[in-house]
Amino acid sequence: MTQTRKQAIVLTSGGLDSTTVLAMARAENFECHTLSFDYGQRHRHELKAAAAVSRKLGAAGHYEVKVDLAQIGGSALTDNIAVPKNRDQKTMAAGIPVTYVPARNTIFLSYALAWAEVLAAPDIFIGVNAIDYSGYPDCRPEYIAAFEKMANLALKSAVEGNTPVRIHALLLHMTKAEIIQAGTRLHVDYAMTHSCYDPDSRGRACGSCDSCLLRKKGFQDAGIPDPTCYTIA
Amino acid sequence: MTQTRKQAIVLTSGGLDSTTVLAMARAENFECHTLSFDYGQRHRHELKAAAAVSRKLGAAGHYEVKVDLAQIGGSALTDNIAVPKNRDQKTMAAGIPVTYVPARNTIFLSYALAWAEVLAAPDIFIGVNAIDYSGYPDCRPEYIAAFEKMANLALKSAVEGNTPVRIHALLLHMTKAEIIQAGTRLHVDYAMTHSCYDPDSRGRACGSCDSCLLRKKGFQDAGIPDPTCYTIA
Repeated sequence: MTQTRKQAIVLTSGGLDSTTVLAMARAENFECHTLSFDYGQRHRHELKAAAAVSRKLGAAGHYEVKVDLAQIGGSALTDNIAVPKNRDQKTMAAGIPVTYVPARNTIFLSYALAWAEVLAAPDIFIGVNAIDYSGYPDCRPEYIAAFEKMANLALKSAVEGNTPVRIHALLLHMTKAEIIQAGTRLHVDYAMTHSCYDPDSRGRACGSCDSCLLRKKGFQDAGIPDPTCYTIA
Repeated sequence: MTQTRKQAIVLTSGGLDSTTVLAMARAENFECHTLSFDYGQRHRHELKAAAAVSRKLGAAGHYEVKVDLAQIGGSALTDNIAVPKNRDQKTMAAGIPVTYVPARNTIFLSYALAWAEVLAAPDIFIGVNAIDYSGYPDCRPEYIAAFEKMANLALKSAVEGNTPVRIHALLLHMTKAEIIQAGTRLHVDYAMTHSCYDPDSRGRACGSCDSCLLRKKGFQDAGIPDPTCYTIA
């Protein structure tokens, strides 16, 4: 008798965090449908990485959804606003940076809800992190809890049936080093992942945006060699 | 001295409810930015109506966002599933119908959040209604309250500043007749609005889907002549 495997939606950006989450969900024996968003981000190279890691980690399906956030604007990741470079940890921790994209995780998770209902996959995995992160409000535990509560009032499948939505934010309380160590134990090839907000035309990481700096420090703290090719060492 | 007027986002479908809400928000002296969604709905005629009522009711701007819900599927409004006809009120009240679109209001409100933050317009108006409605879970007061709570944890402007998001669902507890009476007092021209889920190629209402039946009954109960041109009387 074959047993039906649990289905999950995994938000996959092609970055270090969400790739680790995908590996974790696979290790928990979930059949994973990965969901990526083309939102006009300047670091579009990450979309290729998302497709590649989905294949490599055995996703059952990979979906790329076009979301017009550039039309809305308001972020250095979609607009012609400079991405901050070489900020120290104190500055990073001091406030919400210009790379914040208004309502991004809310829009992404809302699409995930629709897919979750249609695919009967009420487990949604997202790689948000509230420790070594950029200070975005929609990466905090209280936000994730509030979204889950709202989701269970929104969906027909949750309201009528016995299938509550669960938002799995496995990395919430992990440091970047712990994330890298966990992924390394699961044989994640981090050379395939992309973190940089401001890569060059060949997709090479700048080495100095917040995302690159957090990534570099994570590998250092984990004591694991960083396989990333940075244009600035 | 000119006073800055309060800015609002109004979700505008071109239907009876959201048009009434737009008139109400204007009557409360809000400067209104209307937001419509092209989500592959078969009743695309409503998008023209949304643009027309936005102009007529003096919206400061009208935005149409393309959202790919048809790719996701799962609804008679986007898929090749028959729209139910001639259902009586008891049947309508018995459950969530096939015209339910997974996570639709959550996706729409999420986009509204992004616009609200960029336009500094934290008041969001939505025409959901929990009385004469089609039984959708994301039209209930507990859903709206949970969304508002989540929104105030998601947005930089709400977390950092003094500008909480408010979801105004003015019609929640009104009957369709009361909505029509309120709109009529505000001189809404309901002939411009579109409710039908399954119009003909010229945009004429079918007269027998749930949405048409609720609309017809609303005008009857309100004692106001129905200006709609139905193909079936």
